[in-house]
Amino acid sequence: MPSSIEVKASVLHGAKDLRVETRSLPAPAANEVQVAVQATGLCGSDLHYFSHYRNGDILVREPMTLGHESAGVVMATGSEVSSLSVGDRVALEVGLPCEECELCKQGRYNICKGMNFRSSAKAFPHSQGTLQEMVNHPAKWCHKLPASVSLEYGALVEPLSVAMHARDRANLKPGSTVLVLGAGAVGLLCAAASKVSGAKSVIIADIQADRVNFAVENGFADAALVVPMARPQTIEDKLAFAKDLAEKVLASTVKGEAVGEVTVTFECTGVESCMHTAIYSTKPGGRIMIIGMGTPIQTLPISAASLKEVDLVGVFRYANTYPQVINMLASKNEALPDVGKIITQRYKGLDKIPEAFNMAAKVKDEKGNLVLKVLVDMS
Amino acid sequence: MPSSIEVKASVLHGAKDLRVETRSLPAPAANEVQVAVQATGLCGSDLHYFSHYRNGDILVREPMTLGHESAGVVMATGSEVSSLSVGDRVALEVGLPCEECELCKQGRYNICKGMNFRSSAKAFPHSQGTLQEMVNHPAKWCHKLPASVSLEYGALVEPLSVAMHARDRANLKPGSTVLVLGAGAVGLLCAAASKVSGAKSVIIADIQADRVNFAVENGFADAALVVPMARPQTIEDKLAFAKDLAEKVLASTVKGEAVGEVTVTFECTGVESCMHTAIYSTKPGGRIMIIGMGTPIQTLPISAASLKEVDLVGVFRYANTYPQVINMLASKNEALPDVGKIITQRYKGLDKIPEAFNMAAKVKDEKGNLVLKVLVDMS
Amino acid sequence: MPSSIEVKASVLHGAKDLRVETRSLPAPAANEVQVAVQATGLCGSDLHYFSHYRNGDILVREPMTLGHESAGVVMATGSEVSSLSVGDRVALEVGLPCEECELCKQGRYNICKGMNFRSSAKAFPHSQGTLQEMVNHPAKWCHKLPASVSLEYGALVEPLSVAMHARDRANLKPGSTVLVLGAGAVGLLCAAASKVSGAKSVIIADIQADRVNFAVENGFADAALVVPMARPQTIEDKLAFAKDLAEKVLASTVKGEAVGEVTVTFECTGVESCMHTAIYSTKPGGRIMIIGMGTPIQTLPISAASLKEVDLVGVFRYANTYPQVINMLASKNEALPDVGKIITQRYKGLDKIPEAFNMAAKVKDEKGNLVLKVLVDMS
Amino acid sequence: MPSSIEVKASVLHGAKDLRVETRSLPAPAANEVQVAVQATGLCGSDLHYFSHYRNGDILVREPMTLGHESAGVVMATGSEVSSLSVGDRVALEVGLPCEECELCKQGRYNICKGMNFRSSAKAFPHSQGTLQEMVNHPAKWCHKLPASVSLEYGALVEPLSVAMHARDRANLKPGSTVLVLGAGAVGLLCAAASKVSGAKSVIIADIQADRVNFAVENGFADAALVVPMARPQTIEDKLAFAKDLAEKVLASTVKGEAVGEVTVTFECTGVESCMHTAIYSTKPGGRIMIIGMGTPIQTLPISAASLKEVDLVGVFRYANTYPQVINMLASKNEALPDVGKIITQRYKGLDKIPEAFNMAAKVKDEKGNLVLKVLVDMS
Repeated sequence: MPSSIEVKASVLHGAKDLRVETRSLPAPAANEVQVAVQATGLCGSDLHYFSHYRNGDILVREPMTLGHESAGVVMATGSEVSSLSVGDRVALEVGLPCEECELCKQGRYNICKGMNFRSSAKAFPHSQGTLQEMVNHPAKWCHKLPASVSLEYGALVEPLSVAMHARDRANLKPGSTVLVLGAGAVGLLCAAASKVSGAKSVIIADIQADRVNFAVENGFADAALVVPMARPQTIEDKLAFAKDLAEKVLASTVKGEAVGEVTVTFECTGVESCMHTAIYSTKPGGRIMIIGMGTPIQTLPISAASLKEVDLVGVFRYANTYPQVINMLASKNEALPDVGKIITQRYKGLDKIPEAFNMAAKVKDEKGNLVLKVLVDMS
Repeated sequence: MPSSIEVKASVLHGAKDLRVETRSLPAPAANEVQVAVQATGLCGSDLHYFSHYRNGDILVREPMTLGHESAGVVMATGSEVSSLSVGDRVALEVGLPCEECELCKQGRYNICKGMNFRSSAKAFPHSQGTLQEMVNHPAKWCHKLPASVSLEYGALVEPLSVAMHARDRANLKPGSTVLVLGAGAVGLLCAAASKVSGAKSVIIADIQADRVNFAVENGFADAALVVPMARPQTIEDKLAFAKDLAEKVLASTVKGEAVGEVTVTFECTGVESCMHTAIYSTKPGGRIMIIGMGTPIQTLPISAASLKEVDLVGVFRYANTYPQVINMLASKNEALPDVGKIITQRYKGLDKIPEAFNMAAKVKDEKGNLVLKVLVDMS
Repeated sequence: MPSSIEVKASVLHGAKDLRVETRSLPAPAANEVQVAVQATGLCGSDLHYFSHYRNGDILVREPMTLGHESAGVVMATGSEVSSLSVGDRVALEVGLPCEECELCKQGRYNICKGMNFRSSAKAFPHSQGTLQEMVNHPAKWCHKLPASVSLEYGALVEPLSVAMHARDRANLKPGSTVLVLGAGAVGLLCAAASKVSGAKSVIIADIQADRVNFAVENGFADAALVVPMARPQTIEDKLAFAKDLAEKVLASTVKGEAVGEVTVTFECTGVESCMHTAIYSTKPGGRIMIIGMGTPIQTLPISAASLKEVDLVGVFRYANTYPQVINMLASKNEALPDVGKIITQRYKGLDKIPEAFNMAAKVKDEKGNLVLKVLVDMS
Repeated sequence: MPSSIEVKASVLHGAKDLRVETRSLPAPAANEVQVAVQATGLCGSDLHYFSHYRNGDILVREPMTLGHESAGVVMATGSEVSSLSVGDRVALEVGLPCEECELCKQGRYNICKGMNFRSSAKAFPHSQGTLQEMVNHPAKWCHKLPASVSLEYGALVEPLSVAMHARDRANLKPGSTVLVLGAGAVGLLCAAASKVSGAKSVIIADIQADRVNFAVENGFADAALVVPMARPQTIEDKLAFAKDLAEKVLASTVKGEAVGEVTVTFECTGVESCMHTAIYSTKPGGRIMIIGMGTPIQTLPISAASLKEVDLVGVFRYANTYPQVINMLASKNEALPDVGKIITQRYKGLDKIPEAFNMAAKVKDEKGNLVLKVLVDMS
C-alpha cells in the first residue's frame, strides 16, 4: 500500500468562495477503499452552502468540500477489503452512521443522531464532501455498479435513494394514484419511483410549466398541473387556494379520465401551500410523504388530515436503498423513465465547479434548457 | 314478532333543550336486534351538541337523541339473527358504515365517507343516539359481553376502542416509553391501553394536577406532569414553551430513573401547544397519534418532526376494536388498571340526563370529585 | 322492473356431463344488478369439477354451473343501486363473504368461513357459476371497467387478483429478484404482477420448455428454467434434486449476470419438490408465497426455511384487489406484459363449453399452440 | 490499560469432557469492554455440544467454551468506549454480526450469514462462549442493566430475547388468544411475553404435567394442556391425533369459558406433531411462530395452513430485543410473571459446570423440583 498521496479538492471558504486546493490523502484504512470521484450531482443543500456558507440554521465553521451525489472508480483497497477490487465502479453512500445506537442497529441509520454525512456542516469537524479527486471511504458504504449502469447514473443513485425511501415508507402499490408536488430533481425521481412501482396515474404539479411539461414528455408523469403564482395572505385565503388546487388535481385527466383522489402524495417543495394541497388532495387512509425541506414552521389544517387518517410521514434521506436502486437501474424496467434525462448540464473538472453552482441556481440555462440536475464530471 | 312499541327517548331540540319524548319503535328488521339501553357514557361530542346544538362546523338540523357509548340487553331478535339471543348483554358499536366502498371492504370502515354514526348530525336525517329506552341495531354491530364484563364496563368499550385503535396504529410494543397528553377520559384510556401493551413507562400530562394524580394513583400512568397555564403569544415563545415542556417530560422520573425520549405520544387534547410538545418529546422514528379534536388549524414545527421521521398519525374513532377490547376487559390482565374508575358520576333515568350533561361540563363535582366520565344508568 | 326471465345455463350433472338448460332468473334484488355474462375464463378448479364431479375433497352434490372468471354487461339494476347503470361493463367478483364475521369486518373476507363462492361446491346449496347467459349479482361486487379495458381483459381480473393478492402479501418492492414456480396462467400472472412492481429479475421455472419460453418471449419473465422430469424417490434424493435446482435458479443469468438469491418466490404448482426448491432458493428474510393448490400434505425441510426466517405465506384467492387490478390494466404501465396473450383459445357460445373444457385439459392444441387460458365467449 | 491477564475458562474437549483451563486474555480493544461473567444460563444448544461434541449437523472442531446467556460486570474499558464504565452491570449480546451485509444494515442481523455467535461451532475458529471468568466484548453489544434488574435476570435477557423477537414477528396484540407448545424455558418465556403484551388467554401444552402446572401456577399461562404420549405411526393417524389435540386446545377453559381459536401459536418444541397441532389450532389469518429446533424435515398438512392464510413464520434468535427486554424487566409490569422462577437450579463456580450440565439434561432434580433453567453462578 502506498503512503499518502496528494489530491486536488474543491474547498468552500466562504459564500461563493470555492478554491481548488491540494490535500494529503493517507492510504485507505483496512476497511476502506480509495475512490477516484468521477461524477457528482449538485444538490440543493450544496447550493445553499455555496451561496450562503450556511444551510438553514447550520453554519459552516471550517473550510469544507461540497458534494455528496457521487460515483467513482476504486483505485486502492484497504487490507481487509474483500468485497471490492481496484477498477470497480461504485456509487458512494456518503453518510456514515454511528453503527452503535438503537436506530442504527434497527436499520434506520438515516435518523441516527451521530450520523456523519459528507458535505454537511452539522457535525464538527465537518465531514468533507466528494468534490475532490479522491476520497477514502469504508468499503461497506461503496456500492458496486454493474456494467450496465454508467457512472453518471451512479451519481443519481443518491437522489434516487431519497425517492425510493419515500416510496418504501409510502408502501406504494400497483394501481395507485400519485401526486407529486414539485417538479425539480427530487420530485421527478419520486415520480419515476412511482412509475416503476406500477402507479396507475402520476400527476405532477409545479409553478413552472416547463418543468411539468418535461415530466410528462419524458414519461415521469401522466398529467401536469401548473400552479398559479397567487400569494394569498390570510390563512382562510390560503386554504381556499389549496382546496381549489386540490380540486384541479382530482379533475386532472389521464387518457380522458379524471384521476380522482390521490393515494399517496410526495411533497417535494417544503412550501406551506403545497402541504395544504396535499392534505386536501389525499384520500382517506392515504399518506403524505414530507420530503421537501423548506418552511420549517407551517400553519396546517391538521384536523383535515387526521380525521381522514391521512398520515404525515417524514422522509429524511434514506437507508438501505442503494442496492435496491442499483438493481432498479440495472433492470431497465420498461416503466422506469430515463432518469438520466434529469442531468441537464455538465461541467468538467474541479475548476468549473463555481460555474456549475451558478448554473444550479438558475431555472434555465442560456440556451433555454431547464436546469434540473447539474453534474460535475471529474473523469 | 310483536309490531311496533312505544319507547321513551331523550331528544335534543336546541341548546340545552333536552326533552323526554315517546317514539314508536318498529319490530327489529330481519338482521337487527332490539336492545334495551342500560348504560351510556357521555362523550365530549355529546356535550358540544347539548351545549351549542352544534359540534364544531356541524349543525343539528332536526331534533336528535344524543349518546353513543352504550351497552344494553337484547329484548328481541330479527328473523335472521342467529348470533344473539334475547337476554344477551351487548356493547353497541353505533357507527354503521356503508359497507360498499373500498375502505369498508378493506376493513377501514371508520373512515368510510358514508358512515352513519348515532348521535352525530353529520348525515341527514341524523342517526339517532342511544339515550333512549330501546333501539333497533344490526346484530353484527352488537357485541356480546361475557359474564365477567358488566354493562357499565360495556359502556366503556366505545371510548376504549378509540384508545385501542390508537394503540394499534401506533403498533406499540412492550418496553416502550409513552407520553399521553391530556388526562381526560380518552387520555386515561390511552394510558390504560399502553399499560396493557407492556409499556415500560407511561407519562401523563395535563393542566389539572388532580387529573394526573388520579392517573398515577390508579395505575393508569407511572409519572405525572402538570402543565403550567402560561399563554405564550408568539410562535417563538410557544415553541420555547413546548421545548421546555418536552425537557420536563424527558426528565420525569419513574422509580428514580429519567424516562428519556418517548417512543409514542398520544395527543388527546387537540391543543396546539400539546402538538408542539409531542413533536419535541418523541424520539426519532417514533409516532405521534393525533386523537384529540380541538384546534383544527395549527401552526406546527413540521420539519422538526419530519427530519427525525416522527410520523403524525391520525386516529378517527376505531374499526375492528370491539372484540379485542371486550377480550381485554374479560382477561383481567394484571397490567390493566381498573378502567371502571373513570366513571366518576352516575345519573339514573332519562329525566336526569340534563343534570348529567351539566355535570359533564364541570371539572369537579360538588363533593370535590373529579368529573371524568358521567354515566347515564337506564337499567 | 320486469319479472323473472328465462336464461340458458351450462349445468354440470356429472363428470363430463355438461348440459345447456333453461333457468328462470328473477328480477335483480334491490342491491343487485343483472349482468349478461360475456367472457369467462376457465380455471383449474372448474376443470376438476368438470372432469371428476369433485374438486379434491369437495364433492358436487347437486347440478352446478361452472365458471367464475367473468366479465359482462349490466342489463338491469335493482331499485337501490346507484353505482352502476344499464350498459356498464363490469368484472364480476364472484365470492360473496358473510360480511358479519371478524375477518370480513377486517377486510380479509377471502378467508371468511361463510364465503359463498360461485362454482364452488363447498357450501350447499352450491353457489351457481357464471357460465350462463345472465346472473344477478350484488352491485357492490361488480366492478366497472373503464373504456380502455375490454371484456376479455375483464375476465382476467379474477386470476390477476390472485397474483396481486400474492404480490401484496409478499410486499414486493422495486429491485427485487423473483422466482415463479409454474408457468401456467397463475404463474404467468404472478410474473406480470412482479414486473409491474418493479422487480429487477423474474425467473420462471416449469417442466414444459414451451411455457417458460412463452413467458420470456412475451415479457412476463427475464429468465427461464426448464425443470427436468426426474422423479427422485427418497426424501434425501428429493432434497438433493431441489438443492441442485436452486443452484440453477441462482445461476440463471439475466443480461449476462447471475440473478443470485431470490427475494420472493411465488409457488404456483402445489408440487412438493417445488416447495423444496422454493425453500432453498429464497434468501434469508425472504418470503415464499404458497399459491398453487396441489399436494395437501408435503414433507418439507422446514428448518431450512425457519432458520433463515424465510416465511411460508399462504395465499387464498384475494381480497380488495379488483379495483387495484383494473387500475393496473387501465394504466397501460409499460412494465406490464400484455396479459391478454395468456388467452390462447376461445370458444363461442354455451354449446361449446364441453369442447372448451376438453381443450383446457390439454397442454397444446392441434395447431401446436400452448393452452394457457381457455376463454368462453358469450357475447 | 494493563496488558493481558490470565483467566480461567471451562473448555469442552469432547463429549462430556469439560476442563477448567487458564487462558491469556489481552487488554480490551479500543471498542471493547472486559466483562467479568457472573451469571450464565445453560441453553439446549450448550447441552447438545456438551453431550455429543456436536449440535445437529454442526461438529465441534477445536476445544470450545460453552455458554451464551450471560450477564456480568465491566472490569475494564477500551480507549474509545464512552457508553460504559468500570462497575457497570451488563447483559451480553453474544452474537457478533458482520455489520456489512444487506441484512445487517437493514437491522435483521440475526440472519446475517457472517454471524459469529459465542459457543456456536458453526464458524471456524469457533467463537468462544461465556463460561469463563472474563471475556472481552464490543461495548455496543453489552447492554447496561438498571439497578432494578439483577445479574440473574440479566442472564435471562438472552432467552427472553428469543421470546420477544417471536412476539414482535407475531405482532401480538392485546386481547389475543395464544397457544404455546412446549413448556420448557423458551415456551415459558414466550408465554410471559404474551402476557405482557395483553394476551387474553395463554394456553400452554406439554407432555409433562408438572411443567404446564408450573406455568399456570406461576402466572405464565391461563390454561394447561397435558399432551398424551401416543405415538401414531401413519400420517393419517398423526393428523387425526393433532386434530384431536387442536379440539382440546379450543375447548380449554379459562374462567369457565372455552378459549376458542388461537390467534398466534408459538411452536417451541420442534416436534412434527406439534406443528400439526399448531396448524389445526390457529385461526384463519393467524400466525405460527416456529421457534423450536427439532426435526428439521417434517411432513406437514401445508394446505390446511395456506388455505386459511395461517403463515408459518420463522424465528431465529433475535435482533434489537435487548433494550426492549431490559426495559420490560425494569418496568415491573404487573402482567409479567416472575420470570426469575424459571431458574430452578444454581451451581457456583467453573468447577461445577459438568454437574450443572448433568442436571440440565434431567427433567427433575433429586428433590423433585422441575429442571427448567440451570444457572451457573460465577460471582
